[in-house]
Amino acid sequence: MAELRRDPVIGRWVIVSTDNSLGPESYEKEDHTFKQAEVCQFCPGREYQTPPEVDCVREHGSHPNGPGWSVRVVPNKFPALRIEGDLDKRAIGLFDMSNGVGAHEVVIETPDHAKILADLSPQEIVYVIKKFQSRYINLAQDRRFKYIMIFKNYGESAGASVEHPHSQIIALPMIPRYVYEELEGARNYYKFRGRCVYCDMIQQEYEEQKRIVTENNDFIAFCPFTPRFPFENWIFPKKHHLKFEGLSEQEQYHLASILKEMLYRLKICLSDPSYNFYLHLAPVNYESQESFHWHIEIVPQLTRIIGFEWGTGLYYVQTAPFKAAEYLREVSYKI
Amino acid sequence: MAELRRDPVIGRWVIVSTDNSLGPESYEKEDHTFKQAEVCQFCPGREYQTPPEVDCVREHGSHPNGPGWSVRVVPNKFPALRIEGDLDKRAIGLFDMSNGVGAHEVVIETPDHAKILADLSPQEIVYVIKKFQSRYINLAQDRRFKYIMIFKNYGESAGASVEHPHSQIIALPMIPRYVYEELEGARNYYKFRGRCVYCDMIQQEYEEQKRIVTENNDFIAFCPFTPRFPFENWIFPKKHHLKFEGLSEQEQYHLASILKEMLYRLKICLSDPSYNFYLHLAPVNYESQESFHWHIEIVPQLTRIIGFEWGTGLYYVQTAPFKAAEYLREVSYKI
Repeated sequence: MAELRRDPVIGRWVIVSTDNSLGPESYEKEDHTFKQAEVCQFCPGREYQTPPEVDCVREHGSHPNGPGWSVRVVPNKFPALRIEGDLDKRAIGLFDMSNGVGAHEVVIETPDHAKILADLSPQEIVYVIKKFQSRYINLAQDRRFKYIMIFKNYGESAGASVEHPHSQIIALPMIPRYVYEELEGARNYYKFRGRCVYCDMIQQEYEEQKRIVTENNDFIAFCPFTPRFPFENWIFPKKHHLKFEGLSEQEQYHLASILKEMLYRLKICLSDPSYNFYLHLAPVNYESQESFHWHIEIVPQLTRIIGFEWGTGLYYVQTAPFKAAEYLREVSYKI
Repeated sequence: MAELRRDPVIGRWVIVSTDNSLGPESYEKEDHTFKQAEVCQFCPGREYQTPPEVDCVREHGSHPNGPGWSVRVVPNKFPALRIEGDLDKRAIGLFDMSNGVGAHEVVIETPDHAKILADLSPQEIVYVIKKFQSRYINLAQDRRFKYIMIFKNYGESAGASVEHPHSQIIALPMIPRYVYEELEGARNYYKFRGRCVYCDMIQQEYEEQKRIVTENNDFIAFCPFTPRFPFENWIFPKKHHLKFEGLSEQEQYHLASILKEMLYRLKICLSDPSYNFYLHLAPVNYESQESFHWHIEIVPQLTRIIGFEWGTGLYYVQTAPFKAAEYLREVSYKI
């Protein structure tokens, strides 16, 4: 039997297989052997092949756009949106539109072509998080931008075209749809109940003790009750008012630790799957979002979409979240 | 430069490349050579391998679940939802849920394993449409169901696991999200303006004369201004009040003709791409939907999703719809 489940924030329905839940072995494996190292534009020594860096973590005395960095942020060579120009908002008949103004940057997470994010130390991941924060703060100063989207594609099935470990940042002049719906859903819940819907969800996870994978002092990771994809998992700050851009050193370290741990558990449990993660952060240059609770959504890409998902927004997930959490917890992991 | 465009019905933003629009040659080709014919459970002579048929078009004198059919509808052997049981709607903490009650059927479109839908004659496609209609009417009599989802996956990238030409029908106890949003969007527009948003959109297509691919007496096909995917196209009845389940013989023929034509144009233009199509129909056993205008959305699957689409609902389309329409119109097609 399956269950139909409805998400309380945005109202999305999903079909979840509960009694015939598929295990990790049921999903196709993907080969991630490194093939591009010899010509990789993100490797040290080829800094000239990317646009000039906009931010970095570097050894003292090393030169911009030369080797000696541990994290490097560069503009995307083939950006979806460009930083120059006016938005020129206008209508064409029924449609609203504007010029494709925005920023599109790449965060090169390590100089080491063959080290994936899950293999970096928490301290190395802290450097990546610090660059996410500094770019977020910097881009938010441009008042044309309303949303800073930070995400990662790992592996071909997740849309990665470059194999050197990297994530991406896009600054947008509007709030993208899913995030907007989460903001609205959280706001409505807050208005009605005076509580944060995500705080209540975390509380429910603690009470049920079924879908939590791990936690530390500041963060919790669980497989949500209404996933869109098998083995989907979310990382939340435990405190409601923890701002992403204002994390303390200790909070940064705890975020890096739990992110590493979840990526490592996915890697072992699912034989190094392709995945995406997205930071769902509060919008910038926008009304206050007291009711929103930022988080990271991690989505392994294990299956081709079935077809009706695209057309209807209904998802069919063949691994029950409590089973996924069990499999992920079983991976032995030493902090 | 790219443009940011907002859909007037559900408010989705898309990024569309306008000056560096990619042509059909830029997308990867997929091999659809038939491999499963010798063991295909949908081929004539192997009717016993499927669950017993629930509907069909058959030669006079042929027997149910034997050869002699031209279209055959059978329950899905591995259904996402099952017809038996009560919904048992309930809450688990924050979440709404119900048992996975529904129907999941397969429409085998032709006995010929090696003939794809685009190759069938309009008259053969009429038979398929008639079965869509009769199953829609039949399933709607079950008052547990609120939505009948009719869709097709063609090719591996579109999620098809069986190569014998077929489409699928799922009856759902709730309205899936995208359709619900379209219903709401159309209703709000109608309330405010007293007009159908889709009728206005079609009117705009006629005025601009850029994105229409083809039309006949009863239907029009165009590449929408705010697509999610390159070469996405929509087929609309020209008249607002044309009910899918109540199409006249002539309207059925015109629908079959334009569907065949669009699938043929896609096949030639994009070297036989994988695709999905979905019928967005009015819900059943639900309040009246005077403001809704049913249609078919056809989505070729040419690219891996870029990653941020999943996380944010923002889409990046690298072929401008007016260019896609030009490419599709250039295919020579004799009616």
